[in-house]
Amino acid sequence: MGRPLAVALVSGGMDSCVAAALAAREYDLALLHVSYGQRTQERELRAFREIAESFGVERTLVADIGYLRNIGGSSLTDENVAVERANLHRTGIPSSYVPFRNTHFLAIAVSWAEVTGAEKIFIGAAEPDSSGYPDCRESYYDAFNELIRVGTRPETGIEVVTPLIQMKKSEIITLGVQLGAPLHVTWSCYGNNDTPCEDCDSCVLRAKGFEEAGIPDPILAPGKQANKKG
Amino acid sequence: MGRPLAVALVSGGMDSCVAAALAAREYDLALLHVSYGQRTQERELRAFREIAESFGVERTLVADIGYLRNIGGSSLTDENVAVERANLHRTGIPSSYVPFRNTHFLAIAVSWAEVTGAEKIFIGAAEPDSSGYPDCRESYYDAFNELIRVGTRPETGIEVVTPLIQMKKSEIITLGVQLGAPLHVTWSCYGNNDTPCEDCDSCVLRAKGFEEAGIPDPILAPGKQANKKG
Repeated sequence: MGRPLAVALVSGGMDSCVAAALAAREYDLALLHVSYGQRTQERELRAFREIAESFGVERTLVADIGYLRNIGGSSLTDENVAVERANLHRTGIPSSYVPFRNTHFLAIAVSWAEVTGAEKIFIGAAEPDSSGYPDCRESYYDAFNELIRVGTRPETGIEVVTPLIQMKKSEIITLGVQLGAPLHVTWSCYGNNDTPCEDCDSCVLRAKGFEEAGIPDPILAPGKQANKKG
Repeated sequence: MGRPLAVALVSGGMDSCVAAALAAREYDLALLHVSYGQRTQERELRAFREIAESFGVERTLVADIGYLRNIGGSSLTDENVAVERANLHRTGIPSSYVPFRNTHFLAIAVSWAEVTGAEKIFIGAAEPDSSGYPDCRESYYDAFNELIRVGTRPETGIEVVTPLIQMKKSEIITLGVQLGAPLHVTWSCYGNNDTPCEDCDSCVLRAKGFEEAGIPDPILAPGKQANKKG
């Protein structure tokens, strides 16, 4: 008997990479990446392919939901909405929020899981550093699992699992290093495709996380590391 | 003050057309059509455009989720799965079931509603003639509305409404005729793009509905009408 199968959503960023590394301890992996017309989608897709290669996973699916660009409303997909400079003390929901985005991702993951027979769906959502996105909260995933229960074949037992949901970025980084997750091929920046802008929410959160973890970010040149603690 | 806005999902078939006609009594309409790699997607898109024109609605969105074809698992999208001949007494879920399909549709509708400020999402789901699809049941829509509540901005009050959920096909047809819904431009067949095959579940359900309603189907030539009742 082979191991059971899990779908892991892999964006190209660190959190989903660490969630996939956790999944790989118990499950064979099917890796799903979704392009949604975001500014950095080519760079993120490259990171996805490098992560899949690092895990040695051949069962991959890249889904394009570029229609989100036509819907607009977010600085990540709508050229009329500017990417804000980092402000981790902002209150409310930032302009990078793509309305209901994770529902699109999970719908694809569930359809794929139902066809492939996967039992679990791993997603790297983390509430503490989620920028206040409503669809990164634990209550959202509870509601989604109820939707799966009533909306799929009766014999389906698919469940979305969120192993990082209560972890801070620095804890996720530490765990990723312990698991040997390929953080060196991940990509977090919202703004650029070549070098991290170090100015968007996502870059600043990443830098803060590595700094708090006391670990150098493997994607930055040694001279650009944040100062270590202490 | 204009009227409030509602998104109506319009597949090209009869049920969603009647649901949109109901919505039009109270709301300005934004019409959403989703292509998902189904065999008859060009014909359904043509029906969508003709329905939008009949309603005089200019605010339309066509979203392509063709990745469902890559996922497969359904006779509607997977060329390796045959379209079954009609069998309305079949038990269990038919081969045309696209796993979790309506979740993809509703995710798009919610994202669009959140950006446009629409208050309601009308969907023509009907349980009695739903072929047993799990995502056509009332409990599924209750769960989805909970997901919206927890997964969107706090000030969002979007709700999915299913005005036809307990109606039989014949009742939907009668209501559509009463409302002046443009049933003459709708399309139901799962099999063909030119003339209805009259052999798939969807064609047979449609014919049975018109027969029970005692109304001729406007898309069939007079000689091909089902016999009227009595």
